Amino acid sequence: MSLRISEIFGPTIQGEGVLIGAPTVFVRAGGCDYRCVWCDSMHAVDTAYRHQWQKMSAQAVWDEVRALSGGQPLTVSLSGGNPAIQDFGPLIALGKSDGYRFACETQGSVARQWFAELDTLVLSPKPPSSGEVVDWAAFESCLTMAQARPETVLKIVIFDETDYAWAREAAGRYPDLPLYLQPGNPDLDPQQSVDLAACTDRLLWLVEKVTADRWFAARVLPQLHVLLWGNKRGV
Amino acid sequence: MSLRISEIFGPTIQGEGVLIGAPTVFVRAGGCDYRCVWCDSMHAVDTAYRHQWQKMSAQAVWDEVRALSGGQPLTVSLSGGNPAIQDFGPLIALGKSDGYRFACETQGSVARQWFAELDTLVLSPKPPSSGEVVDWAAFESCLTMAQARPETVLKIVIFDETDYAWAREAAGRYPDLPLYLQPGNPDLDPQQSVDLAACTDRLLWLVEKVTADRWFAARVLPQLHVLLWGNKRGV
Repeated sequence: MSLRISEIFGPTIQGEGVLIGAPTVFVRAGGCDYRCVWCDSMHAVDTAYRHQWQKMSAQAVWDEVRALSGGQPLTVSLSGGNPAIQDFGPLIALGKSDGYRFACETQGSVARQWFAELDTLVLSPKPPSSGEVVDWAAFESCLTMAQARPETVLKIVIFDETDYAWAREAAGRYPDLPLYLQPGNPDLDPQQSVDLAACTDRLLWLVEKVTADRWFAARVLPQLHVLLWGNKRGV
Repeated sequence: MSLRISEIFGPTIQGEGVLIGAPTVFVRAGGCDYRCVWCDSMHAVDTAYRHQWQKMSAQAVWDEVRALSGGQPLTVSLSGGNPAIQDFGPLIALGKSDGYRFACETQGSVARQWFAELDTLVLSPKPPSSGEVVDWAAFESCLTMAQARPETVLKIVIFDETDYAWAREAAGRYPDLPLYLQPGNPDLDPQQSVDLAACTDRLLWLVEKVTADRWFAARVLPQLHVLLWGNKRGV
């Protein structure tokens, strides 16, 4: 059974969340059950880009990850799109036998048995500004499937006050999960250079809200890859 | 016995290292056994600033941390200067009884029994560009004193190629300690606004070196507080 892969790239550093700064090879799956209005990876989501996705066996994906990393173990991040709509179990098995670690980023809309084989599961429920509505029963299934084996964390993107209020309530459902917040990035044009001051202003806004509200369970982080490379792909 | 305190401020976010993004109150100790040429906190190091330091009891420090945080537990970071030249044991005992967590940042030149009471110990051996020379026997004593009770991590600041080569060797001594690298910040004037592009360029330089060398044990992070506030004090 083959995988639909949008891109494989790295090693670079993970730009956000619990593994921020960690050398990583990204395997970006093609296809998504969501259509967030501010999606920063539409080339891996919209089937209009399907001709750019490759059908690859788990072994072929693994061979490419190994080549990029020189056979030296690091963290492989399964991202997308939503990687959970495909079966990454065989790829994870190949990688773990070579000593690599696996992280997966998903919105938590589809639960998979292979979640239990991960080292890190990042569940990223989407706030109102996305235009999507979280199915909390499906989200619970993701936690059940993970069986508390991987380090499981919440990551919530926040664009505005409505998202912020929603994030407080969503995070309140899972007080035991480590929580990472990041400001949304509304500037997605890969042709335009990113306004660094605007990025840091958005981070500052979120830091000030979190500290003013004494929301001390939250960690507030930027997207380092946006600060470093703007919206360029493959880094 | 009183503590020499340069400043107490927060809540803000931790700007660097293993706790990056975490809401934190900083207790900055006055006094240091080092004089790193690029020190970003000389106001807490040079005795020329001693008149700005306050002699405070552990209870008085604790009262101020509690007031700043509204009595709601978060991480207290003991920084400096070198906090290890003073006795923070009584402060930690007060804070832990209120449910707070403690981190300490030190170069690892002076070992203290209270290291074992911390939640996080950040040991930051200084590279050649600092003008200081690491006493590895003293550094080992810090690890011994911590008794593997706190999460203990290495953080190394890197200004240039010489520092980078040194960091590889230094980190190689402690393969079991999580490792955080950050580019040095040569622009320290609090009156000048920080050049964001220069900051991200330095980060990019370090990311590219680490990934090219497949130094996958390292995590590479910026100083978020510099991106957000430049070299302003008290944030």
